[in-house]
Amino acid sequence: MGLELYLDLLSQPCRAIYIFAKKNRIPFELQTVDLRKGQHLSDAFAQVNPLQKVPVLKDGDFILTESVAILLYLARKYKVPDHWYPQDLQACARVDEYLAWQHTALRRNCLRALWHKVMLPVFLGEPVSPEMLATTLAELDMALQVLEGKFLQDKAFLTGSHISLADLVAITELMHPVGAGCQVFKGRPKLAAWRQRVEAAVGEVLFQEAHEVILKAKDSQPADPTLKQKMLPKVLAMIQ
Amino acid sequence: MGLELYLDLLSQPCRAIYIFAKKNRIPFELQTVDLRKGQHLSDAFAQVNPLQKVPVLKDGDFILTESVAILLYLARKYKVPDHWYPQDLQACARVDEYLAWQHTALRRNCLRALWHKVMLPVFLGEPVSPEMLATTLAELDMALQVLEGKFLQDKAFLTGSHISLADLVAITELMHPVGAGCQVFKGRPKLAAWRQRVEAAVGEVLFQEAHEVILKAKDSQPADPTLKQKMLPKVLAMIQ
Ligand SMILES: N[C@@H](CCC(=O)N[C@@H](CS)C(=O)NCC(=O)O)C(=O)O
Ligand SMILES: N[C@@H](CCC(=O)N[C@@H](CS)C(=O)NCC(=O)O)C(=O)O
Repeated sequence: MGLELYLDLLSQPCRAIYIFAKKNRIPFELQTVDLRKGQHLSDAFAQVNPLQKVPVLKDGDFILTESVAILLYLARKYKVPDHWYPQDLQACARVDEYLAWQHTALRRNCLRALWHKVMLPVFLGEPVSPEMLATTLAELDMALQVLEGKFLQDKAFLTGSHISLADLVAITELMHPVGAGCQVFKGRPKLAAWRQRVEAAVGEVLFQEAHEVILKAKDSQPADPTLKQKMLPKVLAMIQ
Repeated sequence: MGLELYLDLLSQPCRAIYIFAKKNRIPFELQTVDLRKGQHLSDAFAQVNPLQKVPVLKDGDFILTESVAILLYLARKYKVPDHWYPQDLQACARVDEYLAWQHTALRRNCLRALWHKVMLPVFLGEPVSPEMLATTLAELDMALQVLEGKFLQDKAFLTGSHISLADLVAITELMHPVGAGCQVFKGRPKLAAWRQRVEAAVGEVLFQEAHEVILKAKDSQPADPTLKQKMLPKVLAMIQ
């Protein structure tokens, strides 16, 4: 059995892996796990990942979770161009630094922005107070400032003059609030120019294809009550 | 200028870096940043890390934040024994998987356990309701179940038969709730035996030395009102 990737392109780390594998012509079988249909809660998927989360990589008998670990595994196994995860000690450390920082910063805030603005009210029928939403968006704003001020600065890409895993993880993250209708690039010309460079480096067609689902998140159909009941506590734990 | 590490052993990622550097005889100059004295909020430290957090590595002109990135940098630069961060593709992926998972799981819960149980009430004079504390400890319990069930399983160490960065990051994390008086190893014989193995692999003396500060956290002196006012919003953001 070859490489299998369990993904839902609604999920930001899944998009990063999808783009990375496609861009580097890594052959894989896509196993779609539709989160909005609760497919991650099925018994079949629990066999693959007992934590019931995407993304998951399956390479023969070897099962790997955690998007950052999956990206590094693919980069190493398929010997992709150096710029994605450089051999140079300091350049590599810059990518590691971003990949570690984002977990509790940009990831958290982009996820909350999407769920508070769109997915909780539209998909799960759970209203979010305007105060809560305002706090979420203010926190997102602070994370964007760090992204620009500490990471991007005046460089072409987040960790240097070439695209790396850091840019891919960051852009797929930012498309979450974009999908929720937030103007994350407005008034941020540096970030907007960086986005253009990342899209060009990835290729417009692949970029669009990976983001089709999230850009239509606002049209999500409401979950039926049984599914809602199963999903709500897990969602609240995920976005806390 | 040689290698400098900005640390406070009150902080769990700082302890992991301290033990790793000492154990591998990596020469460094320790720059202590006393969080309880608010030294991370000084102008001098903001020059080193504008985000005002420890740990920070400074190697000549090269400044690096994020504990996971710092550990990988040290492992690579000083060519430490392979078991810490293996060359083997799958073994390495297992370490990456743990290091990615912990950010939003064990880290979050151990940090909250310490602050809710000890540091907020004792150091910052902010009472925490019994309900809040109970929720925090229940969440910690769930994270410990994953640590044991998904990562440790029946192996000697978290990612295989030898100690790796994953074990070091995990044990220093668990000593946070231990410092807060939580019985995290009680009723968990597998985790308790693993702890003994990790301590033996690291060396008892070094392990004790690194944990002296956290094991006395309960005796923290209350912060003065000016410092409390400066620290509280940052602490609440950190443990959210
Ligand atoms: N740290 C993990 C996060 C995985 C994760 O939270 N996945 C989400 C989608 S983005 C999920 O499957 N959520 C379903 C749930 O929590 O119920 C990674 O980066 O891979
Ligand atoms: N993700 C960072 C976290 C750094 C961090 O939050 N450090 C804490 C100590 S454990 C700190 O300096 N807190 C001070 C503050 O946030 O005001 C890492 O792993 O290095």
